[in-house]
This record gives sequence, structure tokens and C-alpha cells, in this order.
Amino acid sequence: MVKTMTESGTVAGERAVARCDVLGKPPFSDETDLLFRPWLGPGFIATVEAISNWMRQAGMTVRQDAAANLIGRYEGSTPDAPALLFGSHLDSVRDGGRYDGMLGVITALEVVAGFHERGEHFPFAIEIVGFGDEEGSRFPITMLTTRSIAGVLEEDDPVAAFAELHDVDGITVEQALARVGLTPRGMAAAKRRKDSVLAYVEAHIEQGPVLEAEGRALGVVSGIAAQRRFEIRLHGMAGHAGTMAMSLRRDALTAASEMVLAIERIGVAGGDRDGLVATVGSLRTWPGVTNVVPGDVTFTIDARAGTIATRDRAVNDILSALKDIAERRGIEIEIIPRENLDPSPCDPRLMALMKTAVQDVTGEPARVLVSGAGHDAMIMARLAPMSMLFIRCEKGISHNPAEAVLPADVGEAVTALTRFVRLFADDYSQTQGRHSA
Amino acid sequence: MVKTMTESGTVAGERAVARCDVLGKPPFSDETDLLFRPWLGPGFIATVEAISNWMRQAGMTVRQDAAANLIGRYEGSTPDAPALLFGSHLDSVRDGGRYDGMLGVITALEVVAGFHERGEHFPFAIEIVGFGDEEGSRFPITMLTTRSIAGVLEEDDPVAAFAELHDVDGITVEQALARVGLTPRGMAAAKRRKDSVLAYVEAHIEQGPVLEAEGRALGVVSGIAAQRRFEIRLHGMAGHAGTMAMSLRRDALTAASEMVLAIERIGVAGGDRDGLVATVGSLRTWPGVTNVVPGDVTFTIDARAGTIATRDRAVNDILSALKDIAERRGIEIEIIPRENLDPSPCDPRLMALMKTAVQDVTGEPARVLVSGAGHDAMIMARLAPMSMLFIRCEKGISHNPAEAVLPADVGEAVTALTRFVRLFADDYSQTQGRHSA
Repeated sequence: MVKTMTESGTVAGERAVARCDVLGKPPFSDETDLLFRPWLGPGFIATVEAISNWMRQAGMTVRQDAAANLIGRYEGSTPDAPALLFGSHLDSVRDGGRYDGMLGVITALEVVAGFHERGEHFPFAIEIVGFGDEEGSRFPITMLTTRSIAGVLEEDDPVAAFAELHDVDGITVEQALARVGLTPRGMAAAKRRKDSVLAYVEAHIEQGPVLEAEGRALGVVSGIAAQRRFEIRLHGMAGHAGTMAMSLRRDALTAASEMVLAIERIGVAGGDRDGLVATVGSLRTWPGVTNVVPGDVTFTIDARAGTIATRDRAVNDILSALKDIAERRGIEIEIIPRENLDPSPCDPRLMALMKTAVQDVTGEPARVLVSGAGHDAMIMARLAPMSMLFIRCEKGISHNPAEAVLPADVGEAVTALTRFVRLFADDYSQTQGRHSA
Repeated sequence: MVKTMTESGTVAGERAVARCDVLGKPPFSDETDLLFRPWLGPGFIATVEAISNWMRQAGMTVRQDAAANLIGRYEGSTPDAPALLFGSHLDSVRDGGRYDGMLGVITALEVVAGFHERGEHFPFAIEIVGFGDEEGSRFPITMLTTRSIAGVLEEDDPVAAFAELHDVDGITVEQALARVGLTPRGMAAAKRRKDSVLAYVEAHIEQGPVLEAEGRALGVVSGIAAQRRFEIRLHGMAGHAGTMAMSLRRDALTAASEMVLAIERIGVAGGDRDGLVATVGSLRTWPGVTNVVPGDVTFTIDARAGTIATRDRAVNDILSALKDIAERRGIEIEIIPRENLDPSPCDPRLMALMKTAVQDVTGEPARVLVSGAGHDAMIMARLAPMSMLFIRCEKGISHNPAEAVLPADVGEAVTALTRFVRLFADDYSQTQGRHSA
């Protein structure tokens, strides 16, 4: 009996989810009771090994580049053909979910496995890239590995200042790379020639509630929201919790608390317009013990919106509120910009192909939506035309062990991406034909 | 030339401060750039060694008891006489000052060194105790070592539950004790017989601004404030900082921030009446990274006042405010009581002697004040009559590297404590005379 497209999609969806689930536990996590897979940690290295084996089973050759990105290549009908790239990231946040990032790599693997099973080849190669550090859950910087492939690492940080950043154990990026035989400056060698990459495609869980609310399995992304991040350092005066009168205190934590509430208020005031969100994800007190008034506090701000204007208006309001609070409380404030990412629009031609693929598979016009989350795709857009496919996830929950997807939805994603590759091949042949003419 | 009392006091004050300064740096601190001397750490062990040598130079025999307390004994005119105990703690908070605790041990050492130099003995022995864990800067509990000597360790914790508490590196109390050849249950053997201890006297920096504001070097303590401590655990919902709409969040950190401000407000509303203070010293976010809405937060509350009524009214207001905030924000709250200490009044007879000693040395009536800080003395009051002497410190700053004292003030403290011992001896002889009569 010949399997129909939908049946094979269901099988692929179930296998993809099962594989993500396997990778959610030791030895693929650095913690026993939760998923934590920081870049270049033991769980990360075990994960690269497991996926390499699955790639080989799907007819791919496997290598790791100068930035330790895992790359599987499924050759085209001619050798050394340029490649259509699929990809997403292998790292996870601490206590994260099993599908964020990983599902993009594993669904692409199912797409290629299908072509390999059917002996189906294209005038281009298909490559799958597993990036290392999209989350920034180990070092206080993100997407060094993506920037390396995209060829913008030196442009973004000409002096490789990132080499000295360190993780919570004091291990620097340079030391972590040295353990796998790599160097910070050497990472730039992972750069891909523009003519060797036709496009970049990333499937990802939505990490938001829209698709679920509308009863859809898939969505086509129009672009990625603009982000800004800051580190805020407050310096007050530490003192004994039993003897420093309330009226004499310069407590860095009460100041920080007022600031956290101001940030929340400004985020809420946006009324979800343009997808504005503002978050304090990390806050640390110093010295951080019960009987000492905190002298210093450090916290992070993450602000995002669909447009630069909305985002920057909120950021300006936030920084102005923080300065007022610091001044009123006699607290010294340092505002350190950490990231400033413009929105990344998806490529219109690829988006049109992806919409067609989704409509062909689901039988209804594709839902188009903005991505509030950052993705490797926003860096890869600087190398090649970029497209993203969103997969529904339960309650929009992500960065949380409760992250969940339906195997049937993942199956539809595999089928849609398979359809996309064929549409892309048709389009490619026509374009090449015109070029040759 | 014979040194006058004041001259010898000045020399002693300078040496005492210099010794505290030496002990503020490695190898007596576990950190190179700041003072951190947790119980039974390498810096603590080096400190015990250094003070042991100074004790022997002052004519004392030295031992460590079953709770690793350092005890120096200066014999009385008859062997095996009961002892007048001086003491304070050897441990420090992280990034603490050099005089908190240590100065009480080192000034007592100068007092004994003076008696030894002059060959002066009393009908009682003098002992100096260096306690181990007054600050609780290593394990989430305080004064196990003091409770051991006072004989109340088993009364306070019949099942030795403290044995399983652990430090930030996961080392338990039991493991830390094992490294120095001791056991949790064995600590109780450090208990002193009540008839072997005549009184307990502790000199300590004020850690508050009163003496400085009034231009006085010394103050006599009337009692130690009532304390309560809590650990608060909040459970909200972690989520992706870019995609979880503000309106859908259950952010444990914004809830905690509102709570921190409520605690500050209730503390301030006390208007420094009865010395009411309320502090959140430690706050941790989970998972604690830039791009994740915090799902869980843990923080501490420390509330103190001169009377139980004032303290408990504030605590009730705080807990009620916290529950309201948690309910309104859909956050689960756990309120875990950690300490509940009644005020500890000083012994009236010893206080009278200490006031006389201070007046004899300073030439003016002694200032009497409440201690907002907890001290080993409040536990030792359960074993023997207790008295405390406060020494002025700069701006009332403590638990901070800026902690500072004047050598001249410390010299006056040494002279006053020396005078106190002689007054105590007169009083003791009279009492004994009456008993023998």
C-alpha cells in the first residue's frame, strides 16, 4: 500500500515530536530534572552527535563548521550546487521547552528524509543548520554562531570583544571554544559565500497564542519584531538590616522594584498594540543576604514591538522613568545597551511560495503574522532571502517545560515544507531558465 | 615611664584595629577583593589559627569545642574557677566590614593581654569565645555554634534538622562539620554548665547612627530587638519575553516588586518608632534570563523592632499586603517562617556595672540604647546574665566594606571593659562573701 502524503506527514510528525522529546532529557540536557542545553555544554555536544546520526540516516553528509554549527548536506542533482538552507538552534534556555529551536531542525530532517526515501533530488542542495547560541542562555550575547555563517560576525564586533564574556562559572567564550578546538577569531571562517546560499527557511513554534486562538496548525511569518535590550546597574548603599533606619536607607532593591513596576506599566499601556512587550527577566541583589540592605542590584530589560517607532517610544519612556526613580531615591544608575535589532522582514517571493504551500496542505488561505520572538532567521536574512513557518503550540507557552505541540500539526508542517521545496524548485528552474535564455 | 590607663588604652585600641584590618584580607577572607568569611571556610580556619596565637601570647590556653567555637581561657586565682565570658563572632557577611563581630573578640583579647602583662588575676577565670555562625552567611540558619555553648541547640531543633541545610555549593552543615572532624549531633556537647559561667559580655560596633550623632564613643545596651524572618516563594508562569502578551502574563517578578515596595512602605510608616525596620535583603528570579518572563521568585523578609507588639503589627500588615497582591495577580504564594526571636533584655545588675565603667572612663553618664541588630548575646542570655557594650562606628554603616571605627574609641572600650572586670570582681567577692557568711 502506498502511503498518501498526509499519512507520511503524520508518521513524520510523530517521529519529529518523539525525537524532540528524547532530546529534552539527559544526556541531552545538562540538568537531570529540567531541560537546560547551553551552547557547547555536555548536553549540547551529545545532541550534535545524535542529530548527526539522524542526518546520515537521511542521506546527508555531516560536518561542523568553524563556529561549531552542525551542518547536514543533501546533495542536489549536480555536485557543488548552491543550497537551500533550513535551520534553527540547538541550545535551550534553562528550564526550557523541548520544541523551541529544536523542532525547526527536526522537521527539516523529516523533509529531507522523505526526499531521500523517494530518491528525490533538486537542481540545488538542501542543507540543515543547527545553530549554537540563539538563546544566549550561557553567555550574555546571542547568535554568534548565526552571525558567523551569515558573514556578519566581524561587522557586528570588529574586535571580537565577545571572546571575554563569561558564563556563570567564569568560563569565557574563548575558553569554551578552545575546549572544542576552535577560536573566537576563527569563527568568522564559517562565513558562507552569498552565491552558495539560495535562501534560508526556518520552521519554529509560534511561542504565542494567535494560531491556537484561530484554530490553525500553521502560520506564515511576515517579519520579526524589533528588539532592544539593556542591562541596568543600580548602586545604593548596603547596610545592616537591623540598624539602618528606614529613613536613612538608599536601598537598591526597593528602587529596582519601583523600576520593574514602571517597565510593566509602560508595557501594559501599549495595549498589545504592535505587539509591544517589555520584560525584566533577570534581577540580582548584592550582597543578597537576609540581614543586609541591598547595596547593588543588576537587572535586564527586553523590549520588543513590530515597529521601531512603537518600540523606541516605549524604551524612551522606560529609561526616563528609571532615571527619575533613581534620582528621587539617591541611587546611582548605569544604563548599558546590550542589543538593538531592527525588525527583519521576510522575503516577499519566498513568503508567497510559503503561503501557497500552506494553503495547498491545509486547504485554506494561510494566516500571516509577525514574530514577537527573535530567531536565527533575522541574522540569516543578512545573508540570503529568508522565510519562516510558524507551528501552533499549546497556549502560546514557550521557554517553559509546559511547551507542547500536536504531532499532527508537526506533520502538516513537514508536508507544507516538502511542498515549499518543490514550489521553490519550480520557481528556481524558471528563474535559471530565464537567466540562461 | 609608667603608662597611664589612657595611654595603654590608646595603644591597645590601635593594635585591636590593626588586627581586625589584617583579618579583613586573604588568607582570612575567602575572596581576594572583598571580605567574606563564612563559617568553617578556609578564611575562617586561618582566622582561628591567627587568633589562637594571639590568645596564647596573652597568657591564655586555647581549645576548640565540639561546635568548633574558639575558646581562650585566662585562669583565675584558683584553678577550675567559674568564668566570666567575653565573646563575639568570627564569621562575616559577603562583602562585609572588618569590625562586625571581630572587634568584640579582639578588644576582649586586649583586656586579657593587659591583665596578663600586669600579672593581674581574679577569683574567676576569664574566657574569650569566638563564635562561628552569627551571620548565617553560609547556611540559611544562624548561631548554631552559640546555641551549642548556651545548651539550647537541642531545645531549638530536637531532630537536628539543620544538619541537612546546605550552602550555595550544595555542601550541607553535616558535610562542613565532617571536614573538621565534627558532627551535627555532637555539637550539643559544647554545652556549658550554668555554674561554670558567671556572665557573658559582648562588645560590638553599634551598627547604627546614634552614638556618632551624639558625639559619644561608647554606649551601654539595654536589650536586643525582637526579630522575625520569612522566606517568600512566588509561583507565576514563565514564558517567552517576546511573545507572551502583557495582558496574559503572570510575572512572579512584577508581583515581587509590588511586594517589596509594600514592605518598604509599612517599614517607613513606623516612622523609626520602636526602631522598626523591614528589609528584603535577597531576591532571586527563576529562570533568571533576559528573554524569559520570570515564573518563580524567592525573597526574604527581615522585620525588627524594640517591642514584640510593634514588630508583629508590622509583620501582620506585611503578610496581609503580600497575600492581597498575590491574589490580585494570580500568583501562588508560600510564606515560610524562618526566625522568631523575642527581644533579649540585658541583665540589670551587669548593666549597672557597665554604666559605671563607661562613666568612669568617659567622665559622663553612659548613654543607654536598644540594639536593632541581633547578636550572639541574645542566645547567651539563655545561659547566663548578659551585658553588651556598643562602640561608635562611622555613619552607622555595617555589613559593608566602608565599616569604620576610631582606634581611640576602641581604646576607650578596652579601658572600660577592663574597669568593668574589676567592678565585676568587687561585686563577685561581696556576693561570694555573703554566700559564705
